[in-house]
Amino acid sequence: MTSRPPLHCLRCARAAEGFAGCRTCAAEGIGVNTMPPLADLAGVDLAAYPGGPWGLPQALPVSGPPVTLGEGDTPCVRLRTDPAPAHDGRSDGRAQDGRHVGEVWLKYEGGNPTGSHKDRAMAVGVAAAVAAGAGTVAAASSGNAGAAAAAYAARAGLRCVVFTNEKVPAGLCAQIDALGAERRVHPGSTADRNAAMARAVEEHRWYPLTSYSSPSPGGNPYANEGYKSVAYELARDFAGRRLDAVVVPTSRADLLAGIGRGFRELAAAGLIDREPRLVAAEPSAAAPFTAALRRTDRADQERTRIAARPTVAFSLGEERPCWQGLDALWRAAGTAVALDDETITAETRRLAAEGLTLEPSSAVGSAVAREFARTPGTLVVAIGTATGLKGLAG
Amino acid sequence: MTSRPPLHCLRCARAAEGFAGCRTCAAEGIGVNTMPPLADLAGVDLAAYPGGPWGLPQALPVSGPPVTLGEGDTPCVRLRTDPAPAHDGRSDGRAQDGRHVGEVWLKYEGGNPTGSHKDRAMAVGVAAAVAAGAGTVAAASSGNAGAAAAAYAARAGLRCVVFTNEKVPAGLCAQIDALGAERRVHPGSTADRNAAMARAVEEHRWYPLTSYSSPSPGGNPYANEGYKSVAYELARDFAGRRLDAVVVPTSRADLLAGIGRGFRELAAAGLIDREPRLVAAEPSAAAPFTAALRRTDRADQERTRIAARPTVAFSLGEERPCWQGLDALWRAAGTAVALDDETITAETRRLAAEGLTLEPSSAVGSAVAREFARTPGTLVVAIGTATGLKGLAG
Ligand SMILES: [Zn+2]
Ligand SMILES: [Zn+2]
Repeated sequence: MTSRPPLHCLRCARAAEGFAGCRTCAAEGIGVNTMPPLADLAGVDLAAYPGGPWGLPQALPVSGPPVTLGEGDTPCVRLRTDPAPAHDGRSDGRAQDGRHVGEVWLKYEGGNPTGSHKDRAMAVGVAAAVAAGAGTVAAASSGNAGAAAAAYAARAGLRCVVFTNEKVPAGLCAQIDALGAERRVHPGSTADRNAAMARAVEEHRWYPLTSYSSPSPGGNPYANEGYKSVAYELARDFAGRRLDAVVVPTSRADLLAGIGRGFRELAAAGLIDREPRLVAAEPSAAAPFTAALRRTDRADQERTRIAARPTVAFSLGEERPCWQGLDALWRAAGTAVALDDETITAETRRLAAEGLTLEPSSAVGSAVAREFARTPGTLVVAIGTATGLKGLAG
Repeated sequence: MTSRPPLHCLRCARAAEGFAGCRTCAAEGIGVNTMPPLADLAGVDLAAYPGGPWGLPQALPVSGPPVTLGEGDTPCVRLRTDPAPAHDGRSDGRAQDGRHVGEVWLKYEGGNPTGSHKDRAMAVGVAAAVAAGAGTVAAASSGNAGAAAAAYAARAGLRCVVFTNEKVPAGLCAQIDALGAERRVHPGSTADRNAAMARAVEEHRWYPLTSYSSPSPGGNPYANEGYKSVAYELARDFAGRRLDAVVVPTSRADLLAGIGRGFRELAAAGLIDREPRLVAAEPSAAAPFTAALRRTDRADQERTRIAARPTVAFSLGEERPCWQGLDALWRAAGTAVALDDETITAETRRLAAEGLTLEPSSAVGSAVAREFARTPGTLVVAIGTATGLKGLAG
């Protein structure tokens, strides 16, 4: 086992230790993650890539043995699209009709072992914990991340403590319990919950698999590298086609930033011609990225703070735009779009009417993707972050 | 669209119409499915097979357009195995220790779009329904098959009616409802439920996606061909290794028979050296195959009838061994093993302790697989038929 690669602040480039983000930037009120260097993918044969984070272990900042439950390599399903609304006078001068509406695809992350995209991160994060000699891992989560942490900790034989609040659906609690994790319910705010985890990380040296500091920099940097595999799989599956945009339901932007890093690695190695545009999809009730990108000055954008309200997309909801997400959007000509709960609920039903059971947070992505596919000829992928099964019986 | 290939009784070879199995054999009290001819896989490049039923469409008896939600290509996960119990005097004369215990792998079918292996069948069955011009599909199911039927019917834009009983867990009911299917609850016996479906198939010409006649011949023949893809994926994933046994949780043996047919096609085309042994895993409370194979005469085996009791493995439980399952076991030097509920519950917990959330019916398979891997050097795969998520909050 070699030593872990060094972490540096994404924003100020200072070297960092630990998992609480950059302290210098935090002192400015900005939560910024510290990350390892991008991987060099030169010479990789994407066509032979089997998918998942461990399908390209050289791209991961972990040198110990893999921890896996078969995560990743999830399917992409093309969604039915309605004909584009009638309009005329477009620049290409052609009459528009249904045949010219773009394609919307859903990458179904609910097929992962615990039913969400979090498995990609936790597979790598728990492997990093094992490599670091940890005996106990900790996660602060309102659901899917806790279930994934519990599963991968179990797989590796580590103890797992999940700090939750009372909003967690019964199905998710049951899943976390069944996987043998210790669930600590904090009735207060997310800040209280995170503070409890911060104390445990400090006092007991538990290995943190999720974010717990404030302002949040985003999740564990090693774990987050697992999300790059989403980009690798998309590049493999849409090889030879022009992927216009990837829409990502966004809270702390761990997934968004990871996908962005993956595409940057692919482009640097010449494995894709150009990086797709990234789109952060948010519920209107908690849309810090949408609010931030309405400002013109980046210094204002990174200091945006909104008042988050409850939403049906219960997995989402931050008050500040995590800097790693802004960074990803800036680099990929990205944007953010917010949708109200009524639209999110309607999209959840629309997906079900097409055979797909996803949680409302996932539906935010596909609803936004449909907007971006109104331009004829476009190819847009939405990340369907988690199965809807966990919330059904709760 | 070409015409469907003809169906013939597996046992008496008579040509058949409809989906109620062979009437001649049924008159003898034996439920026998009628199937299309095996596919010719000559020239197939297994290494390039992308998985799933539609990854090899030429192996399917459906010529219309595919109906897909991204089913199949599920991961195989190696399970932790305990050291073999100390024993001596084995034929190879070597002392046995933990290093010599065989490998047990779990093929995790919970990663399918609706969370179970049934998706492989329903993808093909609904495509067959579309090709047959059906407007409504029907399924009689205590759970997973109903959810899968509902999802694929929704995907194809067909109406779906699911005949259930009161034993169905809340999570599964919620899933079926969310997918827009009509759920008809029959409080009486399975026979009552099936009779209701039989009437609907007869009167309304609804397309049947599951078995509904008595004695049950097994499920829709076209749908069942979707299960062959499990064999193709295993042959691809364990290429170059000797796969000793595949253990399949068995009720009406649709999955078991489909996997057997897949391996026979692979062997006939020279794509595998030998077919693995097939093992039917049953709960002791309802173990018709185990009871049948205790008899020496095949004529007695196929007329076996047991009194099924309730079991934690609620998806399983038949009174007679479906003939298609006996046929599969006879052809593959197969056997059947029954385990009591205590062992099944313990195995469900053991899987969870390793990070895997499966329903108890799936645990029957891995518990039996562990027995077959006690011989050093063996490689055994258990089919983990469904996620445990649906039952958690019910
Ligand atoms: Zn900094
Ligand atoms: Zn017959």
